[in-house]
Amino acid sequence: MNCELCTTLPGVELYADAKLRVILVDNEPDYPGFCRVIWREHVAEMSDLVPADRQYLMDWVWRVEAALRATLNPDKINLASLGNVVPHLHWHVIPRFADDAHFPAPVWAAKKPAGGVAHGAPDLAGRLRAALAARP
Amino acid sequence: MNCELCTTLPGVELYADAKLRVILVDNEPDYPGFCRVIWREHVAEMSDLVPADRQYLMDWVWRVEAALRATLNPDKINLASLGNVVPHLHWHVIPRFADDAHFPAPVWAAKKPAGGVAHGAPDLAGRLRAALAARP
Repeated sequence: MNCELCTTLPGVELYADAKLRVILVDNEPDYPGFCRVIWREHVAEMSDLVPADRQYLMDWVWRVEAALRATLNPDKINLASLGNVVPHLHWHVIPRFADDAHFPAPVWAAKKPAGGVAHGAPDLAGRLRAALAARP
Repeated sequence: MNCELCTTLPGVELYADAKLRVILVDNEPDYPGFCRVIWREHVAEMSDLVPADRQYLMDWVWRVEAALRATLNPDKINLASLGNVVPHLHWHVIPRFADDAHFPAPVWAAKKPAGGVAHGAPDLAGRLRAALAARP
């Protein structure tokens, strides 16, 4: 099996444990706050997980959402688990801004012809790590 | 406030209670199995809900995912909560097929030039209702 989410770390690790990893991705230049929560086990669907694991994974998605809201104050949070290309459970947690490159369209739609603002912050990874660590 | 998810029912209702509604949408011709789980209260983000409500909403997302898998046997399930246009919590639960109109791209990306197969089933709403009712 050749699954990139089993073998590579596509960004800066914000948190990791035996069940999952939280990554600030480094390949979405329009979205400096784009995070992924990646389940460690190679599983395709949420309904393939036992309920306790589903809840644990989503608890981390909510934590990342809250950390992004606290750190970047976006206009909206977008959450998605797609996995059509890489059928290994991972959640996209994307802070969206009215003046970003696609808003109000999803980030997978065509980009606005004029582009948009990439909203980041100095030491974003450090600030997100601190926000994640501060949560119960 | 003029929120379409507060005032309209964009499809066939599969389930409803005091907290949420499950809809088989009627405006996605490429995706006859496209469902939405719509929170009743006008709230924007998952992290605006108390944990018990978050869990209740997601439990219904998982139920819809399982019902779609049992009924249509898709190649993948896509889950998303976006709400950039309508900031009222709702989840898209989309059964995806390798030969559908966008696969492996998200349904919000450009359509394949040749289009794709719209995978449905006779009396899909009735079958999904039965699958949802059969779950614990």
